[in-house]
Amino acid sequence: MKHFDKNTFKVTKPVKLKKIKTSFNLGESKREIKKELEEVREALGELQDTMYAHGKYGVLICLQGMDSAGKDSLIREVFKDFNSRGVVVHSFKVPTELELRHDYLWRHYIALPERGKFSIFNRTHYENVLVTRVHPQYILGENIPSVTSIKDVNDDFWAKRFEQINNFEKHISENGTIIFKFFLNVSKDEQKNRLLRRLDLKEKNWKFSPSDLKERRLWNKYQECYQDAINKTSKSHAPWYTIPSDDKPTARLIVAKIIYDTLKEYTDIQPPALDEKIQKNLELYKKELKSE
Amino acid sequence: MKHFDKNTFKVTKPVKLKKIKTSFNLGESKREIKKELEEVREALGELQDTMYAHGKYGVLICLQGMDSAGKDSLIREVFKDFNSRGVVVHSFKVPTELELRHDYLWRHYIALPERGKFSIFNRTHYENVLVTRVHPQYILGENIPSVTSIKDVNDDFWAKRFEQINNFEKHISENGTIIFKFFLNVSKDEQKNRLLRRLDLKEKNWKFSPSDLKERRLWNKYQECYQDAINKTSKSHAPWYTIPSDDKPTARLIVAKIIYDTLKEYTDIQPPALDEKIQKNLELYKKELKSE
Repeated sequence: MKHFDKNTFKVTKPVKLKKIKTSFNLGESKREIKKELEEVREALGELQDTMYAHGKYGVLICLQGMDSAGKDSLIREVFKDFNSRGVVVHSFKVPTELELRHDYLWRHYIALPERGKFSIFNRTHYENVLVTRVHPQYILGENIPSVTSIKDVNDDFWAKRFEQINNFEKHISENGTIIFKFFLNVSKDEQKNRLLRRLDLKEKNWKFSPSDLKERRLWNKYQECYQDAINKTSKSHAPWYTIPSDDKPTARLIVAKIIYDTLKEYTDIQPPALDEKIQKNLELYKKELKSE
Repeated sequence: MKHFDKNTFKVTKPVKLKKIKTSFNLGESKREIKKELEEVREALGELQDTMYAHGKYGVLICLQGMDSAGKDSLIREVFKDFNSRGVVVHSFKVPTELELRHDYLWRHYIALPERGKFSIFNRTHYENVLVTRVHPQYILGENIPSVTSIKDVNDDFWAKRFEQINNFEKHISENGTIIFKFFLNVSKDEQKNRLLRRLDLKEKNWKFSPSDLKERRLWNKYQECYQDAINKTSKSHAPWYTIPSDDKPTARLIVAKIIYDTLKEYTDIQPPALDEKIQKNLELYKKELKSE
């Protein structure tokens, strides 16, 4: 595997999304990139097995990005070599009636990873400061007692929400969840290409919805909200990474390597030692089996 | 109903449990107390119906207290006139294997009340700073990566846990949960009487466990932990009430009135108005039915 610095993409100080590139040259051929991804994801699968045996850390992978940014296919490609036992993907759509009867973090809290496992959030709790910020009238549907009109969805409201999200992530991090937050950053032009493909290719048609175009018209507003969310909530224990995503294989490799390189830093992740007494008697156990 | 100030029992500044009485004279006969409780709980049942229709606030009732403090029978008596639809009781015991695979708040988060409903926690997330503080070795069973030996369960650890609990309660309060925290305060002598009763009466035997005596021997340590927990986490949005509980009917009436009086202050709790169009056409609907 070629060395490559995950910190290149980590948000450690306020960023301007407009100035961040949506493409990145890894200096490798397509074939090399594909081969490298195969290597990393295999290593990641093995590491996951060890984490499962270790049973202390859960891993939360948050994926955000505009429509067609490549979230679904990234999940398919990066986690291909996982034992399904160790990973659960949660795709968060429009909240259900039951979900709306709870605070907005509830459905995400339930879906947090068990110790030793991965949870992948395909769209995340951040939608609560993204789609609802672009469409503040959605907040009224949450039935929060202190919000009686759209006027209550003001700067204070969003500041409070960022604080709530930061406290939530701090809490789960302190209790053993390792958090990754990826913003799959595509250009408006590349989105256009991908949406056109959805319309052109019969087998892609089902992924298209007229609302994709409606939301695309709000591109700038979304970018502003993403930028604010990323800047307000990128923390050392729960960093945001902006992933250049105009080329899908590049984005996948970068994400896979960030996850792998970060987890390798947790040197305490080891299979648990066998109980000493059992260890001592291994020969006895063997004997018993052989003498059957 | 006789007037009576709920703030008498509210913890608004640091308290010393030793100085707080475990009995309280309501100045009424047993019969009057019983009758009053009947009135309050009926009113509370009606108010709950309205809250269900309103559908914005959830209510979280946290009950803590030493063994035999009267938690179970209080739940039975205070919520007797509720429509079962509107209330869910969660009795938290030793965490299960699944629960231990998540952070300690997870099982409580799941059980939070839906908007319009009550959740009663019979023992609560506070056990995580009570029983585990008296027995810090239990924390090792939680598999928190940063806790590798009992030495890590230090003052910093508890300070962090109080902060986590405070942030958790602040978040749910800001999003529409009304929180009550009751410490059912019994004297050590009264606990002795009640445990003896459990041993004497055949139909009470099942409630006894030898561990009750083991924990009783740690009485002072428990009181210290309760005192610290109460002082560190009593907030205006999530106050603790210390309830004199040597007399059960008195304790039940006090708790019922605190809940009722507090909820009555939420003047926004009203059944939702019928849609104007439907309202206008009520006569038409009647006509249709009658002309069948």
